[in-house]
Amino acid sequence: MSQFTFDVSATDGLARRGTISMPRGVVRTPAFMPVGTAATVKAMYLDQVRDLGSDIILGNTYHLMLRPGAERVARLGGLHDFARWPHPILTDSGGFQVMSLASLRKMSEQGVTFRSHIDGTVHELTPERSIEIQGLLDSDIQMQLDECIRLPAERSEIERAMELSLRWAERCAVAFGDQPGKAMFGIVQGGDDAALRIRSAERLRDMGLKGYAVGGLAVGEPQDVMLAMLGETVPVLPHGKPRYLMGVGTPDDILKSIMRGIDMFDCVMPTRAGRHGLAFTRHGRINLKNARHAEDAAPLDERSACPATRDYSRAYLHHLVRTQETLGAMLLTWNNLAYYQQLMSGARDAIERGAFADFVAETTEGWVRGERERGTARS
Amino acid sequence: MSQFTFDVSATDGLARRGTISMPRGVVRTPAFMPVGTAATVKAMYLDQVRDLGSDIILGNTYHLMLRPGAERVARLGGLHDFARWPHPILTDSGGFQVMSLASLRKMSEQGVTFRSHIDGTVHELTPERSIEIQGLLDSDIQMQLDECIRLPAERSEIERAMELSLRWAERCAVAFGDQPGKAMFGIVQGGDDAALRIRSAERLRDMGLKGYAVGGLAVGEPQDVMLAMLGETVPVLPHGKPRYLMGVGTPDDILKSIMRGIDMFDCVMPTRAGRHGLAFTRHGRINLKNARHAEDAAPLDERSACPATRDYSRAYLHHLVRTQETLGAMLLTWNNLAYYQQLMSGARDAIERGAFADFVAETTEGWVRGERERGTARS
Repeated sequence: MSQFTFDVSATDGLARRGTISMPRGVVRTPAFMPVGTAATVKAMYLDQVRDLGSDIILGNTYHLMLRPGAERVARLGGLHDFARWPHPILTDSGGFQVMSLASLRKMSEQGVTFRSHIDGTVHELTPERSIEIQGLLDSDIQMQLDECIRLPAERSEIERAMELSLRWAERCAVAFGDQPGKAMFGIVQGGDDAALRIRSAERLRDMGLKGYAVGGLAVGEPQDVMLAMLGETVPVLPHGKPRYLMGVGTPDDILKSIMRGIDMFDCVMPTRAGRHGLAFTRHGRINLKNARHAEDAAPLDERSACPATRDYSRAYLHHLVRTQETLGAMLLTWNNLAYYQQLMSGARDAIERGAFADFVAETTEGWVRGERERGTARS
Repeated sequence: MSQFTFDVSATDGLARRGTISMPRGVVRTPAFMPVGTAATVKAMYLDQVRDLGSDIILGNTYHLMLRPGAERVARLGGLHDFARWPHPILTDSGGFQVMSLASLRKMSEQGVTFRSHIDGTVHELTPERSIEIQGLLDSDIQMQLDECIRLPAERSEIERAMELSLRWAERCAVAFGDQPGKAMFGIVQGGDDAALRIRSAERLRDMGLKGYAVGGLAVGEPQDVMLAMLGETVPVLPHGKPRYLMGVGTPDDILKSIMRGIDMFDCVMPTRAGRHGLAFTRHGRINLKNARHAEDAAPLDERSACPATRDYSRAYLHHLVRTQETLGAMLLTWNNLAYYQQLMSGARDAIERGAFADFVAETTEGWVRGERERGTARS
């Protein structure tokens, strides 16, 4: 497979079961991409991440451009060799972390200059430099540089950032050029304004890109606003291209977004929560810090195939979390990524069977029942 | 095997190749015991620790009595079930950490009272309570409570603590009673005073215990003082009982102590160093923080069977250490324990072949050559 392609093999309502193919491998969609911030999925061996059914991971351009540096990664053979992940990698553009982490940002038509949050050094990120960095990393799916603003915001400000992002999409497409085995995705912006979201989606669609992301959501707005924006945006995007909802989300967010036609997700939630004592399970969320787990000999889920989920008692996990032992983060991250990938696998099977609504209902019922019976919280 | 036994199957000079057998398994000696402080060998899955050839791990009574508490561990089935390590476990008495971590210590003939370094609560540790706690943990090899003082110290102070430790050994032996499948070891004290060490070893030998430790060494004194004390003490101890040098040490310390008749070791060095960017290898110590590794695509040792040692570039390890990523600690701890166990395995084979001196010379030569060729440091 020398070309980047996307095929939809089954649909169930708006939900799609598809396959992205590229030289480094295939991605079964709907897909969840574990976040590998700094060339590592925190507290995991990448072999484990793969064994859980991950077809693709995400790398953060912002972090990697600062440490170890894109040119250095290129000299070491690219991100795949560096991190020992020979499978597909998607990189973001760096724009989002510039907004959330860097200081002294200065936006212009040209790009953004900022100071590193690590050592204060000044860097510039333009659409062209972002694509250059992603190329140095040898990323398989590259994202356009965009301006993602915080909500709530004035409509005029949302519109200005959305229009700038469209111009940057054009410049990124030119910089990316013709690379048959790879893809550059555009990003729909427009905040919580349906008309702006539609205009952004239409203009990106007209560029004929290989894939489309929806950005600037799950940045603090209520879930129903996010879902409403998906409802407006997704129908505008072409059927034959993958759709990626950036930075989302909870298991519930993901199922409801698949139902609205989204194919790809990434989120720090399973990995970050795993470092803070929170487990995602078939029974809902379980906060292992809670004292009621202190003498509970039951595992998180005796029916799971994941050793972290099946073989360790809640009492032991509670102890590891309370003592801040690294193994606690290792086991809970492993459990959480296992649960997320199990959820995606279940969703893919259900779409193929034309039973996605039933799958969502059963899964949600499991969370609610867990909440009722064991005092866990709904996912 | 329902009885705790020790057999020496080969000797080479004073070095011994032996087997400790007990109901939970056998320990091949010379043995290195990874330190599992709080029911976890930091940054490792215990399955990995086992796969590296570890026959036994060490648990810290002080840490476990405070969190999660000995009675709680007992209610959860003991330390083996709690931590998922069905193989032998040795526990220390708690005395050493009381000295090094707790505040407001008050020593008396009866025992020691102290405040927890975690929450300031007051606890008492007597010889009887230490053995009771180790029994609640269901430890296979239990250590007497002793008083370990810092060196340098006045001879009178060393003698007082040594005599107190002997009286506590008697009380621990009574508290331990008759448990055929388990063992309680006495601890030789006496600081850097040969006469006191010999007196301590003779009096413990006369108690007819199942094993003997040498304590109060590697607490800051030069290596030659430590080795001199071993030279005085070990000949006094009975041939047919295992000898355990507590808290030691570097690979070089371990080889030189095996040569003086020691059978068992524990040390936080491989695990702690792994969390601080330091790798122990066939080529000596490698400090991965050092900038000269930043673009070195070579692994730590391409000839190792350990994935952490063989499959990851020094450049990647350097990046993980510099960014303080958990995976850096995971990989370097794995590498270090692999190297320590490889060293023990090599030592056991060499003693069987009657070639231990050659093994020590070759191993030391590897460290020196590494130091010369790659700028690593001697282990």
